Amino acid sequence: MLGRVATAIGDAGGTIGAIDIVAVEDDHAVRDITAICSEESEWAGIVAAIEGVDGTRVLDTTDRTFQMHLGGKIELHSKSPLKTRDDLSMAYTPGVARVCEAIAEDPDKAFQYTIKRNTVAVVSDGTAVLGLGDIGPAAAMPVMEGKAVLFKEFAEVDAFPICLDTTDPDEIVSIVKALAPTFGGINLEDISAPRCFEIEDRLAAELDIPVFHDDQHGTAVVTLAALINAAKLTGRKLSEMRVLVTGLGAAGVAVTRILQSAGVTEIVGCDSKGAVHVDRADYLDGTMNAVKRWYAEQTNPERLSGRPGDVIDGMDLFVGVSGARVMPAEALARMNRDAIVFAMANPNPEVTPEEAAPFVRVMATGRSDYPNQINNVLCFPGIFRGALDVRAPQITEAMKQAAAQAIADIVPEEELREDYIVPSVFNRDVAPAVAEAVKRAARADGEAAVAGTEVGYAPTDELHVAAG
Amino acid sequence: MLGRVATAIGDAGGTIGAIDIVAVEDDHAVRDITAICSEESEWAGIVAAIEGVDGTRVLDTTDRTFQMHLGGKIELHSKSPLKTRDDLSMAYTPGVARVCEAIAEDPDKAFQYTIKRNTVAVVSDGTAVLGLGDIGPAAAMPVMEGKAVLFKEFAEVDAFPICLDTTDPDEIVSIVKALAPTFGGINLEDISAPRCFEIEDRLAAELDIPVFHDDQHGTAVVTLAALINAAKLTGRKLSEMRVLVTGLGAAGVAVTRILQSAGVTEIVGCDSKGAVHVDRADYLDGTMNAVKRWYAEQTNPERLSGRPGDVIDGMDLFVGVSGARVMPAEALARMNRDAIVFAMANPNPEVTPEEAAPFVRVMATGRSDYPNQINNVLCFPGIFRGALDVRAPQITEAMKQAAAQAIADIVPEEELREDYIVPSVFNRDVAPAVAEAVKRAARADGEAAVAGTEVGYAPTDELHVAAG
Repeated sequence: MLGRVATAIGDAGGTIGAIDIVAVEDDHAVRDITAICSEESEWAGIVAAIEGVDGTRVLDTTDRTFQMHLGGKIELHSKSPLKTRDDLSMAYTPGVARVCEAIAEDPDKAFQYTIKRNTVAVVSDGTAVLGLGDIGPAAAMPVMEGKAVLFKEFAEVDAFPICLDTTDPDEIVSIVKALAPTFGGINLEDISAPRCFEIEDRLAAELDIPVFHDDQHGTAVVTLAALINAAKLTGRKLSEMRVLVTGLGAAGVAVTRILQSAGVTEIVGCDSKGAVHVDRADYLDGTMNAVKRWYAEQTNPERLSGRPGDVIDGMDLFVGVSGARVMPAEALARMNRDAIVFAMANPNPEVTPEEAAPFVRVMATGRSDYPNQINNVLCFPGIFRGALDVRAPQITEAMKQAAAQAIADIVPEEELREDYIVPSVFNRDVAPAVAEAVKRAARADGEAAVAGTEVGYAPTDELHVAAG
Repeated sequence: MLGRVATAIGDAGGTIGAIDIVAVEDDHAVRDITAICSEESEWAGIVAAIEGVDGTRVLDTTDRTFQMHLGGKIELHSKSPLKTRDDLSMAYTPGVARVCEAIAEDPDKAFQYTIKRNTVAVVSDGTAVLGLGDIGPAAAMPVMEGKAVLFKEFAEVDAFPICLDTTDPDEIVSIVKALAPTFGGINLEDISAPRCFEIEDRLAAELDIPVFHDDQHGTAVVTLAALINAAKLTGRKLSEMRVLVTGLGAAGVAVTRILQSAGVTEIVGCDSKGAVHVDRADYLDGTMNAVKRWYAEQTNPERLSGRPGDVIDGMDLFVGVSGARVMPAEALARMNRDAIVFAMANPNPEVTPEEAAPFVRVMATGRSDYPNQINNVLCFPGIFRGALDVRAPQITEAMKQAAAQAIADIVPEEELREDYIVPSVFNRDVAPAVAEAVKRAARADGEAAVAGTEVGYAPTDELHVAAG
């Protein structure tokens, strides 16, 4: 029987990786068979082939991605053992009462004696999840858990996913404000534009811990890092570059702002209706939202109009944070020489590297299977590590610029080439370098609340004294 | 110099446990000295004695309880390694998108593929923390972290502390409802009465995951467990007992309710104004709150009035969940023979075991340094373990009764004695036994949503088939 099943799997294109006996009964056996396929699409055929073997039944199927997610991807651990009554009396009552009292007296001590010091909330309402859109808070959880895994892996930050069952900006703001005592930072994630701008601005103004919408600023920081190196490689100054941005959601607006802060003056942005400017009908009739009005006023002084392919003439850089195939490859021929293209729509970029190749010198995407992946994971772990370490109350523009420069600097000048302008997401030097740069910038800004950590006076039955 | 410091510490009553060099400079050394004292009160004297040694300065002091709390007591861990691009593409994009889609299609799958399955929020507003009262959300964190440590230690439940910067019941209800997608259960903690009753009732009615206010029901369950064994030991039936409860906050009301459910009919409750009944002035003039009005209507049909010591005549059980020294010891002489006293105010009980000894047969307290400690940790880890395992949408009365019986049954009948009616908090058999009993009760109630966990069909590049 097993031989016939194995043959059926092979005939359907699968390679058997492992076979384990689960149970043997009088008249049948249950086996766990691992089959490796080259394509997901072969899957149904393999199951059908097994079902087609007389006397065989497929009881259940799974795959390694779903298996990895069983029960979620993160868990809580205690940092101290709890084995004796003595341990219990320190971690919980009665000992814990003294720690509570110390914080009640001096709220600043929360950063010393609670998880606030190292814990970030990854907050989403599930309205703009990956390329999937508004899938709701429950379905957004695997992404937020994944984010928590990355925070821990790359920067030892404890991040906890908070998926909110509301999309009302007022409610989100008041909830996150109410949650703040637990956390040392707030990472907003996958909240759709334009609500994300208002939510971040209000929280940043009202909270004394850093608030960072990663879809905006993480993308912006890594884009700027890539641009710093691309400019170096092509011998340009940022202040002399002309830039086209497509997609004016969270990422597009933030990329524009960080480029402006970095010295870029000539930027044109396109949304789904084409280039944005102050003569466009929806600007004039007042139906354009506030963020895009700002955009229209701050960019495109020539009032270029038309689709992305119509306004690309003479651009040095094209940044796509919009959607698949928004840019016709041939249009890229009208860019300046040594053209730079960051086509970051996922999984299908605005223009594919293959099609763009004849027209561009430096190409980056959001994908891991092409060179130069522009991935937020290069930014957010290190930026929060740095901010938490100095207890910065906010992530300033200077801290973001410093993070971008630190990411760019990871690629040694002598190794810089067209297909290596950003470090690998697995380069373990990135997060510590970003954290260091962010700390320095925070201190220079006067944003750092602490130089080091001091442990205060606290009477008890065992006393540690540092006597000099 | 070190000799003189050591002598000074010794003269001040400290015993030196360890000395470590921190730094040596040309003209001085910094040392970390651990001194063991018999009393906290000796502490200031030791510091003063060191400061009194010429040429010596105390740079900093700490103690082991505060040291244990440095940076908080819990942290997050990833359950799967993230070492290769392949790992990343499963835990995060692009692989995670399929998991999100599966949950978006079938929200029930959140229990399978996210931390919801095993994660409980420990929610407090910091208004009634331990015996400390309203110390606010930041200062409450160490207690909630401690609770998370206990959840993990005793029942492998991942609990995350959420301390809310609001005390408004409407806001707390709407925040917790919005947080629900992340969690499989809500443990309310240290929220002051009477707001805690309304908050719990509304959340239990509006959420499809269990909501459990531990200060109410944890205390009630363990009290009932102790009473079951005390009744067995003294040959009584619950239905024939007369009970006096002092303290009508969260614990007192819940204890009364669970005793009624368990068959006790004769209960008198006292708050700070004395015994509650329907002829009391604040009942008649309408100033009594809704919960106490219920209490007045459901208890004390004889309308006994007066202070605790005035209404204790002929009681079989006195339950104190009020404050220090509320009950004069001599008054206990007027209880029925083989009197049972649970004096649970912490750290100072309503009547001390020493004073009560001549008058009572079975005595329990909330303290770990007397026999029969009535401690919620015997209940909450196991009750949530059981509820999560069967995905019970609520904690029913039957589940609480079953938990109490399970705790009581841990003490073998032949070992039952006056000073051993409840198991030790470190008895590792308790939580699994409670969880099992709770699961059985949930299934009997029809509250269990799942019998086991099934993994659905999910095509990918590696396929596991269970073929029989």
